[in-house]
Amino acid sequence: QSNVTIYGVVDIGVDHRSGSDTYDSRTALDSGLQSGSRIGFRGVEDLGNGLKASFVLEQSIKADLGEGSGYTRQSFLALSGGFGTVALGRQETPQHRFVDAIDPFGGGTVGQANGVYAKTADRLNNVFAYVTPDFGGFSLTAAYTLNGTADESAITKGQPDTDLEVFALHPVYKNGPLHVGLNYIHTEAEAATGDRESDTWELGAAYDFGAVRLSALYGEIDYDNDANYGDDTRKQWMVGASVPVGSAGKFAVSYVTAEFDDLDREGKQIAVGYFHDLSKRTNLYVAYAKRSDEILFKTSGSGAVDNGTGYEKGFNLGIRHKF
Amino acid sequence: QSNVTIYGVVDIGVDHRSGSDTYDSRTALDSGLQSGSRIGFRGVEDLGNGLKASFVLEQSIKADLGEGSGYTRQSFLALSGGFGTVALGRQETPQHRFVDAIDPFGGGTVGQANGVYAKTADRLNNVFAYVTPDFGGFSLTAAYTLNGTADESAITKGQPDTDLEVFALHPVYKNGPLHVGLNYIHTEAEAATGDRESDTWELGAAYDFGAVRLSALYGEIDYDNDANYGDDTRKQWMVGASVPVGSAGKFAVSYVTAEFDDLDREGKQIAVGYFHDLSKRTNLYVAYAKRSDEILFKTSGSGAVDNGTGYEKGFNLGIRHKF
Amino acid sequence: QSNVTIYGVVDIGVDHRSGSDTYDSRTALDSGLQSGSRIGFRGVEDLGNGLKASFVLEQSIKADLGEGSGYTRQSFLALSGGFGTVALGRQETPQHRFVDAIDPFGGGTVGQANGVYAKTADRLNNVFAYVTPDFGGFSLTAAYTLNGTADESAITKGQPDTDLEVFALHPVYKNGPLHVGLNYIHTEAEAATGDRESDTWELGAAYDFGAVRLSALYGEIDYDNDANYGDDTRKQWMVGASVPVGSAGKFAVSYVTAEFDDLDREGKQIAVGYFHDLSKRTNLYVAYAKRSDEILFKTSGSGAVDNGTGYEKGFNLGIRHKF
Repeated sequence: QSNVTIYGVVDIGVDHRSGSDTYDSRTALDSGLQSGSRIGFRGVEDLGNGLKASFVLEQSIKADLGEGSGYTRQSFLALSGGFGTVALGRQETPQHRFVDAIDPFGGGTVGQANGVYAKTADRLNNVFAYVTPDFGGFSLTAAYTLNGTADESAITKGQPDTDLEVFALHPVYKNGPLHVGLNYIHTEAEAATGDRESDTWELGAAYDFGAVRLSALYGEIDYDNDANYGDDTRKQWMVGASVPVGSAGKFAVSYVTAEFDDLDREGKQIAVGYFHDLSKRTNLYVAYAKRSDEILFKTSGSGAVDNGTGYEKGFNLGIRHKF
Repeated sequence: QSNVTIYGVVDIGVDHRSGSDTYDSRTALDSGLQSGSRIGFRGVEDLGNGLKASFVLEQSIKADLGEGSGYTRQSFLALSGGFGTVALGRQETPQHRFVDAIDPFGGGTVGQANGVYAKTADRLNNVFAYVTPDFGGFSLTAAYTLNGTADESAITKGQPDTDLEVFALHPVYKNGPLHVGLNYIHTEAEAATGDRESDTWELGAAYDFGAVRLSALYGEIDYDNDANYGDDTRKQWMVGASVPVGSAGKFAVSYVTAEFDDLDREGKQIAVGYFHDLSKRTNLYVAYAKRSDEILFKTSGSGAVDNGTGYEKGFNLGIRHKF
Repeated sequence: QSNVTIYGVVDIGVDHRSGSDTYDSRTALDSGLQSGSRIGFRGVEDLGNGLKASFVLEQSIKADLGEGSGYTRQSFLALSGGFGTVALGRQETPQHRFVDAIDPFGGGTVGQANGVYAKTADRLNNVFAYVTPDFGGFSLTAAYTLNGTADESAITKGQPDTDLEVFALHPVYKNGPLHVGLNYIHTEAEAATGDRESDTWELGAAYDFGAVRLSALYGEIDYDNDANYGDDTRKQWMVGASVPVGSAGKFAVSYVTAEFDDLDREGKQIAVGYFHDLSKRTNLYVAYAKRSDEILFKTSGSGAVDNGTGYEKGFNLGIRHKF
């Protein structure tokens, strides 16, 4: 027990969506609106000579429904030392962490950039990851997996290897008020119709002026023989700002847009939110987002009710407690 | 870790059922005969000004089978203060707690009132609950959910909202030897055949005379356009007693009956049991129940072997350990 | 929390298999190569008079995939005293523990004896187990279950009782350098085609000479009306050795073979491995195994990719961390 720390988040609130042509408006008590509800177990062992072994097992929870199983958020073993960190297992992608760090909504609530700004992958299975030591604020993460979405298959001779191979590279500089980084992700899988690939490029930065933190993201996803998009390119960007309000509050605003080169679909989202700390571990939040798009909203709460339902407006009011 | 308390129950014993016309008698090692086996994680944070945030994540376990997943017993976040407590998430109903508290078997073993005495709901999803402060022993619980059995649906325009809406009210007075309370539960769902509703009323009381604790429950469930019962009323009552035996023992006995106004089905159950503490946390139990009914027994152990099997006699012998 | 200890293993590494006629070679990051990744909760309560209550809830994890649910490894309640230990619930079989203890690979990596040497059962549901006190190194374990693979069924009158009844007996002597034991397991289930039974006999021993630990196992499984093997006998044996290398290393080697009396299938496996401690809790491992058999390999990693795929060569390189 002395080896293990239990931690987590219980986040629950009201999610209201409206403005769909097909569906009635939906009001729900949903889990994980600002941050995914979770329970995690982690530990560190000092191996001597500056070497450390550590592990994380982190389970996703839907507190509104009493659901939770597996350690789908993260489950990995890491070795750290002067050389940096090597981590093996199911892990968050550098993209996931970086995009959410730049986003003034932190990747949470209906106001999250991810409502329109697509991430290639939030988490991947079977990842070999390497993170360099911190060089005066600069570090580099490289990650590779032979199958990011399931167990590596035993492939019958002569058949295509449909496992999703992924390579990711993420140089980042974080120092004082500045956070700037680059993402590259390559995905690849064989299919009967030929190889399917995607290349994601992403540049993002945030600068904290004290009275306001400004942030911007630009990304491209180049699809090659994609099952949904064929050969096309998705271009997307976000600009946002957050402003401290008193000692406990934060106001956030963002504008996000995405479009394809060929496909006639595009999306725009404008979002505002306010976050209020009751303590270091507990805060209230309220957020509103409106979009006009043909790229469908992604949901942030329990139940993927927004994917495919075409809701144009969303409202969140809730509470997040960290433990 | 300092923020989280791990607690739980491992309860396991022998369950023997017999007297079915259709099935051979069944002997089994079953989990959760007296109290559902479980593991839980909970924590409290003091927010200052008398305000507290707390959470509970409680998983159901079948120790005989090595099963357990999700936090289906309870998973909620609560804020407490001078105003009382507001709790959001999947929660036990006031009925569940009250009926089990009045029942001399505490809602456990084959002797539980629930074998014949139906509860409308033990637990519900998506609950907004409010509990008043304690006023000299009196308190009131109000609970509401937009869908008690699953995630709130996105309803296609023009289609019925089949989500199970539930409202519950529970005034209770607990002071010294007396425990008396009232339950009201209203359920409602739209169906193609019109609205389906139920109203449950319940009055219960227990008085502890020291040498004996007497208890009684009376309840009615009024069904309106119910999928199983149409328009009918179920009337049910329980009388019971428990007697301390020495410093570590307790003997329990109860008689339960239920019948419908229109439907020609009724049930009777007589049960005896003995509970013996090995410590504050660990006890042995033995219980026997016999029924003559056409309302089928509910099971208390792993596997719903009694539902629909028509066993008329049940026997339990087991051990319960709390941690 | 003071009552509960959290413990576990995160084991992850590279598994490479090749030499199949049907499948391409497979390279994977897999979990649990040396020891199954797991997280467990356990506790002990002193009941006085030399009596103790204890429990174990142990969940299996696939760290490469973020999977884990239930407590399928172990979930039981035990009472211990001068009389020995009685344990109730899902438990490891004495065979599982004994075979793995004799095996120089400890039942782990691609080199485990279990690749060719079949165990009748690793874990069983609904087990009543009794372990005698230790008599100068000698102890006896007896275990019985009415259904080792699922919940005990409610059997319709006149139908066969298909539940898998199992009885196991395991006398063992462990003293200083010597570990010697005997296993007997009887399984029995009714089927429409008549009773199905199996009897497993097993003798194993290991002796630690300091510079080398030698070990050997011989086992027979007599099948009677088996669904796969009809009436036949499987005979299998293993010889192995392990040699300490310095203060932190261990080299292991084993040869395993199995054949049937009637059925024309046999298997041979030769394996070598090296285990290196980074600390008491963390070690690296590397192992290689080659087989020539028609009894198919059992897999040791995530995903049963070896069962039925006919890989003839396996290689593991990984790290195991205990917490």
